[in-house]
Amino acid sequence: MMENERIRRILEMMERQQIDLLLLMPSAGMKYALGDSPIADERLFVLALAPGKKPFLLANSLYQLEAAELFDGECVFWQDGEDPYPVLCRQLEVLGYRWNRTAVERSTQAQFLLPLQKLLPGAGFEPASEILDRLRIHKDEKERERLRKASRLGDEALRRVMERGGRWIGKTEAEFFARLSYEMTCLGLDVPDACVCAGANAADPHYVSRQGIIQENSCLLVDFGGTWKHYYTDMTRTFWFGQPDAEFEKVYDIVRRANEAGEAAAILGRPMEEIDRAARKVICDAGYGQYFIHRTGHGVGIDVHESPNAAEGEKAILEPGMAFSVEPGIYLPGRFGVRIEDLVLMTEVGAEVLHSYPKELTCFRREDV
Amino acid sequence: MMENERIRRILEMMERQQIDLLLLMPSAGMKYALGDSPIADERLFVLALAPGKKPFLLANSLYQLEAAELFDGECVFWQDGEDPYPVLCRQLEVLGYRWNRTAVERSTQAQFLLPLQKLLPGAGFEPASEILDRLRIHKDEKERERLRKASRLGDEALRRVMERGGRWIGKTEAEFFARLSYEMTCLGLDVPDACVCAGANAADPHYVSRQGIIQENSCLLVDFGGTWKHYYTDMTRTFWFGQPDAEFEKVYDIVRRANEAGEAAAILGRPMEEIDRAARKVICDAGYGQYFIHRTGHGVGIDVHESPNAAEGEKAILEPGMAFSVEPGIYLPGRFGVRIEDLVLMTEVGAEVLHSYPKELTCFRREDV
Repeated sequence: MMENERIRRILEMMERQQIDLLLLMPSAGMKYALGDSPIADERLFVLALAPGKKPFLLANSLYQLEAAELFDGECVFWQDGEDPYPVLCRQLEVLGYRWNRTAVERSTQAQFLLPLQKLLPGAGFEPASEILDRLRIHKDEKERERLRKASRLGDEALRRVMERGGRWIGKTEAEFFARLSYEMTCLGLDVPDACVCAGANAADPHYVSRQGIIQENSCLLVDFGGTWKHYYTDMTRTFWFGQPDAEFEKVYDIVRRANEAGEAAAILGRPMEEIDRAARKVICDAGYGQYFIHRTGHGVGIDVHESPNAAEGEKAILEPGMAFSVEPGIYLPGRFGVRIEDLVLMTEVGAEVLHSYPKELTCFRREDV
Repeated sequence: MMENERIRRILEMMERQQIDLLLLMPSAGMKYALGDSPIADERLFVLALAPGKKPFLLANSLYQLEAAELFDGECVFWQDGEDPYPVLCRQLEVLGYRWNRTAVERSTQAQFLLPLQKLLPGAGFEPASEILDRLRIHKDEKERERLRKASRLGDEALRRVMERGGRWIGKTEAEFFARLSYEMTCLGLDVPDACVCAGANAADPHYVSRQGIIQENSCLLVDFGGTWKHYYTDMTRTFWFGQPDAEFEKVYDIVRRANEAGEAAAILGRPMEEIDRAARKVICDAGYGQYFIHRTGHGVGIDVHESPNAAEGEKAILEPGMAFSVEPGIYLPGRFGVRIEDLVLMTEVGAEVLHSYPKELTCFRREDV
């Protein structure tokens, strides 16, 4: 079973780092280890792992079915009304666990961490990032298929929304966002989210408001994504409505070439930072360097932002299984912004761009329906 | 300013409970204290409060604008590349804070809590629930307006979706969910979510899958909500498609009367548990007691589930400002389920039901369009 292979890898990494105990609660880490994670509530639900010891899952008896589906090893249940922490402690002792160095995920909540610290007074708690982040960088075949499917569905959702062409002129960013979320949901993507930026709003890469109007002779930048079986897609396209504009066309062409240069620099064995350098060079050479104000990309997987980054200083070497965005942009304050983003997956034969939505400049006129 | 009044109340409650220091990170608690909360990332962003001391907000300099908008008191900034924890410690010392008893929210993440524990070695950390939960139970006028508006928008979203009437027959739960989310988003509700349960799926109150088909001569249970300016609406209606069914009509009538009896028991000065008893009595008297397998309701506000509950054993006295759901149900395994849920807000003059969507049984025929 795929997930047990992942647990084996986690245990190996723990041994190498001399971590005694890993306690995983519902989170990205649990999704990685077990393939899924229940909806988090206030009831302690924890997977305990230690090198050389028998792993177990502790859950409230209300989650008996979920636990059995998630984990085919030992499950220990506690009842509503019972204090689960002594149950956990007993189980750790019975199985001979130690907890001098206990790792928990960054996202572990105080409602669980504070009682655990009381329960295991000698334990030194530390973040599990060094174990999990390093493993999650390399996507296995199952994860790769999910990333591919998520991205195909993202392409299709955008295609469906853009079928309306010039009829989007006069609509709000909110309406566009609602429609895009609708199409993503219909296609099976969960947690749909998007930045929809009309006109000058596109010049702010952190823009979130949705009150803007899609205007004629103006741009629309759409950065969006969602998950397929917990794995994210994330893509950006920028469109033009109305009569083409000379400077927009020029900037668009630079960004498209920067995107392609970044993707072309995704070469097995080379450092991640070269992707950033390749994309940035195109923009700097064209004289717009000061308007490219963020890194070229970020890792993607169970989290929409994870390791490794396509950024200056990122020395990680490109290896099979890595997945990340390539998303250069040029932002002209008060005027417009252009960003073009694809996800790239590294496989044993090189870089695979996960999106097929066209990158040629598309202008929609009012009469295009 | 409304938010400063809330900080005053928090400080008063801290003093009463002899808490030295409260550290609020982006969360429901920050939304309560400041009216809003930035999108959480890995950069320390914290509001420090202590009775008799000057409150301050510590934030990364990237969030200078957000900090100034959120908080009109002292803001201290740290730079990317700098360790924010010593900056926090210095500021606590400069302002004469103590931290023997330090409270943090339940949701505070290990990535912040573990460094804080290192920074303040003498500090005893404890959950802030006793401070915040008790205050959040009583909604002020601004919060009440948000709850009212959220619920009005929920009613309207469902009305728009149900305009399609019998044309929903043959569609999937996923399509219905996508459409309802679309209408909520268009109306300005954030984080739209729904349980859409067709036929026998409605008999499982924890059903989440969305593959079922809306069928003729079968029910559809829709439990959904979203937020208006951080405050939740949450409502449920159950419909019938096709020819009315005698037992469904009977069960529907019982649940509707249970819902109304629960709402009628929401009387200032009476204990919350009486709402549960009143609703349950109707269902038990009709012989369906064993099929009503959950509490009658839960508090609602910044969280979709918060205090107080409408449940046996909940002794909290009904007071102005409390908001909660009344949602009795009958679930007949393998056949159908009926639940009818409204939010109720207690004001100085009594209970106000926040939803106006009709509760009479509605049957949609294929020809109703």
